[in-house]
Amino acid sequence: MTHHPPNNEHVDENMFKLEVNLDDISGEWLGFVMDRLFDAGANDVFYTPIYMKKNRPGVLLQLLCAKTDLDKMKEILLQETTTLGIRYYPITVHRSERKFIDVETEWGTVTVKQGVAEGEVFQNSPEYEDCKRIAEKHQIPLKKVYEAVWKKL
Amino acid sequence: MTHHPPNNEHVDENMFKLEVNLDDISGEWLGFVMDRLFDAGANDVFYTPIYMKKNRPGVLLQLLCAKTDLDKMKEILLQETTTLGIRYYPITVHRSERKFIDVETEWGTVTVKQGVAEGEVFQNSPEYEDCKRIAEKHQIPLKKVYEAVWKKL
Amino acid sequence: MTHHPPNNEHVDENMFKLEVNLDDISGEWLGFVMDRLFDAGANDVFYTPIYMKKNRPGVLLQLLCAKTDLDKMKEILLQETTTLGIRYYPITVHRSERKFIDVETEWGTVTVKQGVAEGEVFQNSPEYEDCKRIAEKHQIPLKKVYEAVWKKL
Amino acid sequence: MTHHPPNNEHVDENMFKLEVNLDDISGEWLGFVMDRLFDAGANDVFYTPIYMKKNRPGVLLQLLCAKTDLDKMKEILLQETTTLGIRYYPITVHRSERKFIDVETEWGTVTVKQGVAEGEVFQNSPEYEDCKRIAEKHQIPLKKVYEAVWKKL
Amino acid sequence: MTHHPPNNEHVDENMFKLEVNLDDISGEWLGFVMDRLFDAGANDVFYTPIYMKKNRPGVLLQLLCAKTDLDKMKEILLQETTTLGIRYYPITVHRSERKFIDVETEWGTVTVKQGVAEGEVFQNSPEYEDCKRIAEKHQIPLKKVYEAVWKKL
Amino acid sequence: MTHHPPNNEHVDENMFKLEVNLDDISGEWLGFVMDRLFDAGANDVFYTPIYMKKNRPGVLLQLLCAKTDLDKMKEILLQETTTLGIRYYPITVHRSERKFIDVETEWGTVTVKQGVAEGEVFQNSPEYEDCKRIAEKHQIPLKKVYEAVWKKL
Repeated sequence: MTHHPPNNEHVDENMFKLEVNLDDISGEWLGFVMDRLFDAGANDVFYTPIYMKKNRPGVLLQLLCAKTDLDKMKEILLQETTTLGIRYYPITVHRSERKFIDVETEWGTVTVKQGVAEGEVFQNSPEYEDCKRIAEKHQIPLKKVYEAVWKKL
Repeated sequence: MTHHPPNNEHVDENMFKLEVNLDDISGEWLGFVMDRLFDAGANDVFYTPIYMKKNRPGVLLQLLCAKTDLDKMKEILLQETTTLGIRYYPITVHRSERKFIDVETEWGTVTVKQGVAEGEVFQNSPEYEDCKRIAEKHQIPLKKVYEAVWKKL
Repeated sequence: MTHHPPNNEHVDENMFKLEVNLDDISGEWLGFVMDRLFDAGANDVFYTPIYMKKNRPGVLLQLLCAKTDLDKMKEILLQETTTLGIRYYPITVHRSERKFIDVETEWGTVTVKQGVAEGEVFQNSPEYEDCKRIAEKHQIPLKKVYEAVWKKL
Repeated sequence: MTHHPPNNEHVDENMFKLEVNLDDISGEWLGFVMDRLFDAGANDVFYTPIYMKKNRPGVLLQLLCAKTDLDKMKEILLQETTTLGIRYYPITVHRSERKFIDVETEWGTVTVKQGVAEGEVFQNSPEYEDCKRIAEKHQIPLKKVYEAVWKKL
Repeated sequence: MTHHPPNNEHVDENMFKLEVNLDDISGEWLGFVMDRLFDAGANDVFYTPIYMKKNRPGVLLQLLCAKTDLDKMKEILLQETTTLGIRYYPITVHRSERKFIDVETEWGTVTVKQGVAEGEVFQNSPEYEDCKRIAEKHQIPLKKVYEAVWKKL
Repeated sequence: MTHHPPNNEHVDENMFKLEVNLDDISGEWLGFVMDRLFDAGANDVFYTPIYMKKNRPGVLLQLLCAKTDLDKMKEILLQETTTLGIRYYPITVHRSERKFIDVETEWGTVTVKQGVAEGEVFQNSPEYEDCKRIAEKHQIPLKKVYEAVWKKL
């Protein structure tokens, strides 16, 4: 159901950004909404603090999704937030080629996502969930796990 | 003069978002500008704190308006802010059907805006100005007024 | 009832800062709370966007008041917000000597608050409410009113 | 190990606020740090976006804990963040009396935390985790669960 | 190499906004990236604090550039940040006519950028770098330099 | 003149935090003020976006300095900002032992600041200015310089 972009370099012309301004909802609910939207296939969801009329600290919800997911996302936003209006516009997304390698540390394997351009690796991102699992299991600082991975690269 | 969207569900393709980055204006003036823009018919106006060059805490002004109000909004922005450049792009707005009902509380009537989809009410927003007026007149917490309205729904 | 500090330079050792973290209240209510606290004599009230647990965009309410107003402020915070805990600590406030002068513009008088140190004026702040009233009455940009005042200083 | 304040109204004079400025750590790690600190007994942990020197978007970590937990918190901050300096100061916390009641909804029980003053309930907070569990299990909007609880109060 | 817009009033239809969400990069690096992008001809670059998944305080990088600079900007973003995906969309920029005049102060010349509409000056911006140089050279507050310029206008 | 804390682990009881709320100053000036305060010996200076009365996006300036620098800092704040009131309170700062080592890369030497506890290094921070100089001189991404240093540690 979720929109999985391919791993080779490509330009995606079928993405949309949705935006909603919220000044009559609590932070508690917004934490929940974010999870719901990710579960339903949003490519990204994020909040920005905004200053709204009448001295209100509000929140701008932004969401990136494939055109085919637009209706599903709108439905969740209406159900779970307090908005009655959703705005959106098409965006282009340029994604780099990415590949995944395994790196062995003394505590176990960590997957590293690599950005590749013209055959060369220009980016290395150890997978957070792998590092976190090791840190928790072995009771070591997360920092140490990342450092161990970087040294192996 | 103001752009009043209709109350039935509709998709509005004639809306624009305007944006201005501001690093040479005070917060005092920005409070004033927001009111001016709303009075002139902006559908929404909001500020975001941004980090600009040379260590400047700046403000991003965002404004939503109908295409037909674009020139009027530009004029106010030039007159009342310090910008010499205004950027904008078209957005689509999907608005839900909304209706308004009256709810009686022990202190008076509160209008509630309701979101409706497929004949069913999925959203209830007591009008802030009504609740505020009651809270001030009867010297009770605003919270209590909202709670009274919710119980009646 | 409000705490009016004197106009001569002084160090005030009887001030407190109160803080409340809020993640289960809407922006709408917070706009109201701010006014209530100022009306009750708070020297300043301001909000900061904060990141709270469970992905919640929350708000930090900060409030400055005289020690003698501490209980009154606590009471309003409990009544009007959703908190059950209020934290606070004493602060020292160093206030400069200030005086007020009248400046005549072509549209009327504007009071200017001046900061004074060792007999010399080092700060000039035209009163916002004066400038705003003129801007609205004469339909001129607020910017123009301030510029007119600055030229006269 | 965690510091559990009592449920009756009281003024706690043994609390501290710790603060750390961070400009050389990623958001990924900070998400982890927050959980670690809560698990170790912090009463609250929250982040504020700050503007630091050399155009750096940084993060201010703030943490509230009992005096007896000060050393444990410092140790985690040194292990898991990139800081070499931790600042802190004592704060007073005034906590209201709170009690917990059970509210039955059509989908199950929800605990509600109540704030009490002079024998009167002035605050009702449905427990988020209860409402979330019901929303997920019964596939209904979180909003609906809260509304059902409010109606029963 | 840099994109220099003309000084007369015009509507520029060849501009783009690029956006990148960042949660695995430090503030230190982001300060550097901003300078790199400006040096390469970006018309503007700015950061917004955002709330990302898993409790991460992230940063939204926004960048305005001419269509002809799009590829150059993408390249720098991939090299200097940790992103593997860049999104963008076309924007329209309306720029006012601007001219530059010299203003003499007792400490030297300051260039003032003026906004002009229908032959009338509606905006005056003393050049920051000029004022800063004078303030540093003559050891006077920056505020005084600006005030001196405003009086001469 | 600047306050240089020692490199061994210590608890500093002679530090102060100063705070100023600003709603009538531009971001341009604030960028300048930060530099001025650092030059005068502030241990840290940072800004937070705040929501002030009358819909004003304001800025909270926070400053850390030694007690002996308090008056000097106050003077600069009065001269360079628009405030007439400065608040402050004492804070305790716990600083870890730190030492500095040189790391050789293929492009030159980079100093690394290390945090030390009980004889063990728990923190490694390559000096930003060293890495930046190399990145600019050799036209390589800053990221690459840091990675090279980390590998050598």
